[in-house]
Amino acid sequence: MPVSCNDALLTDLYQLTMLQGYFEQGMRDTAVFELFVRRLPPGRQYLIAAGLTQALEYLQQFHFSEKDITWLEASGRFSCAFIDYLRELRFTGDVHAMAEGTVFFANEPILRVTAPLPEAQLVESRLINIMHYQTLIASKAARIVLSAPDKMLVDFGMRRAHGGEAGLYAARASYLAGFDGTATTLAAPLFGIPVYGTMAHAFVQSHDNEISAFEHFAYAQPNNVVLLIDTYDTERAARHVVSLAPCLQQQGISIQAVRLDSGDLAAHACKVRKILDEGSLAQVRIFVSGNLDEYRISTLLANGAPIDGFGIGTLLATSADAPYLDCAYKLQEYAGRSRRKRSEGKETWPGRKQVYRQYSLQGVIEKDILTLADETLAGRPLIKAVMRQGRALQAPVELKNIRKYVHQELASLPLSLRRLDSNVSLSPEINESLLVLVQALDAL
Amino acid sequence: MPVSCNDALLTDLYQLTMLQGYFEQGMRDTAVFELFVRRLPPGRQYLIAAGLTQALEYLQQFHFSEKDITWLEASGRFSCAFIDYLRELRFTGDVHAMAEGTVFFANEPILRVTAPLPEAQLVESRLINIMHYQTLIASKAARIVLSAPDKMLVDFGMRRAHGGEAGLYAARASYLAGFDGTATTLAAPLFGIPVYGTMAHAFVQSHDNEISAFEHFAYAQPNNVVLLIDTYDTERAARHVVSLAPCLQQQGISIQAVRLDSGDLAAHACKVRKILDEGSLAQVRIFVSGNLDEYRISTLLANGAPIDGFGIGTLLATSADAPYLDCAYKLQEYAGRSRRKRSEGKETWPGRKQVYRQYSLQGVIEKDILTLADETLAGRPLIKAVMRQGRALQAPVELKNIRKYVHQELASLPLSLRRLDSNVSLSPEINESLLVLVQALDAL
Repeated sequence: MPVSCNDALLTDLYQLTMLQGYFEQGMRDTAVFELFVRRLPPGRQYLIAAGLTQALEYLQQFHFSEKDITWLEASGRFSCAFIDYLRELRFTGDVHAMAEGTVFFANEPILRVTAPLPEAQLVESRLINIMHYQTLIASKAARIVLSAPDKMLVDFGMRRAHGGEAGLYAARASYLAGFDGTATTLAAPLFGIPVYGTMAHAFVQSHDNEISAFEHFAYAQPNNVVLLIDTYDTERAARHVVSLAPCLQQQGISIQAVRLDSGDLAAHACKVRKILDEGSLAQVRIFVSGNLDEYRISTLLANGAPIDGFGIGTLLATSADAPYLDCAYKLQEYAGRSRRKRSEGKETWPGRKQVYRQYSLQGVIEKDILTLADETLAGRPLIKAVMRQGRALQAPVELKNIRKYVHQELASLPLSLRRLDSNVSLSPEINESLLVLVQALDAL
Repeated sequence: MPVSCNDALLTDLYQLTMLQGYFEQGMRDTAVFELFVRRLPPGRQYLIAAGLTQALEYLQQFHFSEKDITWLEASGRFSCAFIDYLRELRFTGDVHAMAEGTVFFANEPILRVTAPLPEAQLVESRLINIMHYQTLIASKAARIVLSAPDKMLVDFGMRRAHGGEAGLYAARASYLAGFDGTATTLAAPLFGIPVYGTMAHAFVQSHDNEISAFEHFAYAQPNNVVLLIDTYDTERAARHVVSLAPCLQQQGISIQAVRLDSGDLAAHACKVRKILDEGSLAQVRIFVSGNLDEYRISTLLANGAPIDGFGIGTLLATSADAPYLDCAYKLQEYAGRSRRKRSEGKETWPGRKQVYRQYSLQGVIEKDILTLADETLAGRPLIKAVMRQGRALQAPVELKNIRKYVHQELASLPLSLRRLDSNVSLSPEINESLLVLVQALDAL
């Protein structure tokens, strides 16, 4: 059975059991929930907000299908009146959010939902599911982008991403963070992302010898000749490339690059560069892949490895060094009253909030201030209205424009946060008004 | 745009560029690919094969939609003749596999595809994507199951799983490994998995006081009264439960359990157990959640914490301590000749293979032997035919039967592999015939 990831039943069962409680008590007043990350994981000094486009799509199409209703009825858990209510339920609320691609820090809301309590509650699980993963990957990808200036970066992660949707979202989130494209074909029609791909080892192995594999590939993809040269012996394959190039050239076909996928990439890249240069193939670029992340890439580049581009797969698409964020979607106000969760270690900042960002004259982030949304402070307010009464206020921002915006955002990071080995982050200053509200609520 | 995870374009672009090469050279002979894990990650002594049902569904429905074809044409990368060929392409091959739920080790194939080269090649990316993630999660879940005998275990991971499909597959993979159920509602209609769920902190916070929240919930879900007691002050909430119980009892409603989600779970569980027992609520169970995995659970239980059940979320659904497996799908034979990839550190065992498992008299695994598929050795052959000419040989195994089978499989693990802190695994013995084949291929 094919999986529909926007199905209204893709939610935690407790959302539905709570909704039955709200329904029976007539609790439909306005609730305000905010989505934020409590603490940044080790190895992350900043995060990049992503996934808003898909979150808004989800809210806008939200409804229970007839199949969903049939299951709800058969489950025996819910009253007929409540199921009738669910049948008509749509998301009619407002959403405020940081623009996709915004740099943010712990305890700063990236999304605020203002809606009748049941609607705001029910969408929690899937909203987190969408925003958490894309934010996780955009944040990881940004680190890779900063570690490899001017290099070509391609997402190779789909096969080991956690399911199909993760593969697609990883392509999107890494592209918006500054990658050049992805190997995941469906990301092209779905998101308009450039796709890249040439050959796997099986192509070479299925031929009786490496040279004929290279030759056949070049004829089949004359505008896309990137040859994988590590199936048997990397340097010998590089010499095959040199010997093949003149014949291809005579037929108007240029070899664009070679790819290395195993062994000591720096050492092989040096040897291969030398072989190519001596074979009059100075224009042929070297592309590498295999267990790469920002740490390995910056070591390779620091050691002067002659590498022009990187394919980054598993460690990107699983964000392997920090595979999740401590994110939460919490009730901050109901029926006009601010609310505060006080569970140990999980206390929240109550009320509707805004983040003001202040910059140095050079455009570097100096300070964030977390405050109540009805206040106006100096600086740039990061949270804006994006949906009113269930309708998005504007068409989704084009991915390439988000990508440009991320480039600016990353340029505004203080040097102390950009360094891979940095252990510091930035905590928003808590404005006086918010502290006063907390005291008042805790005194209740 | 909704994502279809079984779309034929959910594949790496290089599969298509290679296919154009195969197409132009008329390379459609039979290829044999095997899917296996090269090395187990630290912290895993064994793995549990999972995902075969969805892999076979994928192969059986494989086709390019008209939308896919339109994109392929517009991309300008492929010839018309090749696109016409893709339009008609179906998967017509054979599949052999380990049964879902089988314990396996490094270098043991869990899936073998025997098909015309282009078909076997094209399905690589998505086959890995499906099998890798479910195997990852079933393997993580099995560790949790072994660490909490006779406890109730529920998957809470959907929100922080990597996308929607991961949330659903995590529910499936953890259930087949021995979990009791999931919080992810859609997993019930989709896979027939028991679902569990009661309330979140927002339910308590949206009420003016905790007692009325508990009361309203009990009336709305009289057969499912599990009360979340850590929103403000855990022990005070436990006393609220005690004071509420008699009134509910008069109306025929029993409180089944309380849930703790923060703070020192062992300490709170002890205090809460005492309060409940002294309040004549000895039958009310204690369920805990919050950043749990097999290590934390076994520490809680070793310390005698009076806990009856666990909700396990993020660390399960992301397999956070080992968020990926080093798995591969490699060409082992083409056109009747065995093939071997020799890339450094990524050498493969060539040919079509079988794994024989030998047991002690007590039914404990003693040895696995990796050998060529046309040999018969002593022991239990783990790999069987599951699909012929693109059609599954039988209906999918029912999930509850896979679950029973995993229970037996885990019982066959040597004690040395079951221990959480064990650093050993089991490597299959390589049979002589396979070593001879490798020598012959390397000598070519």
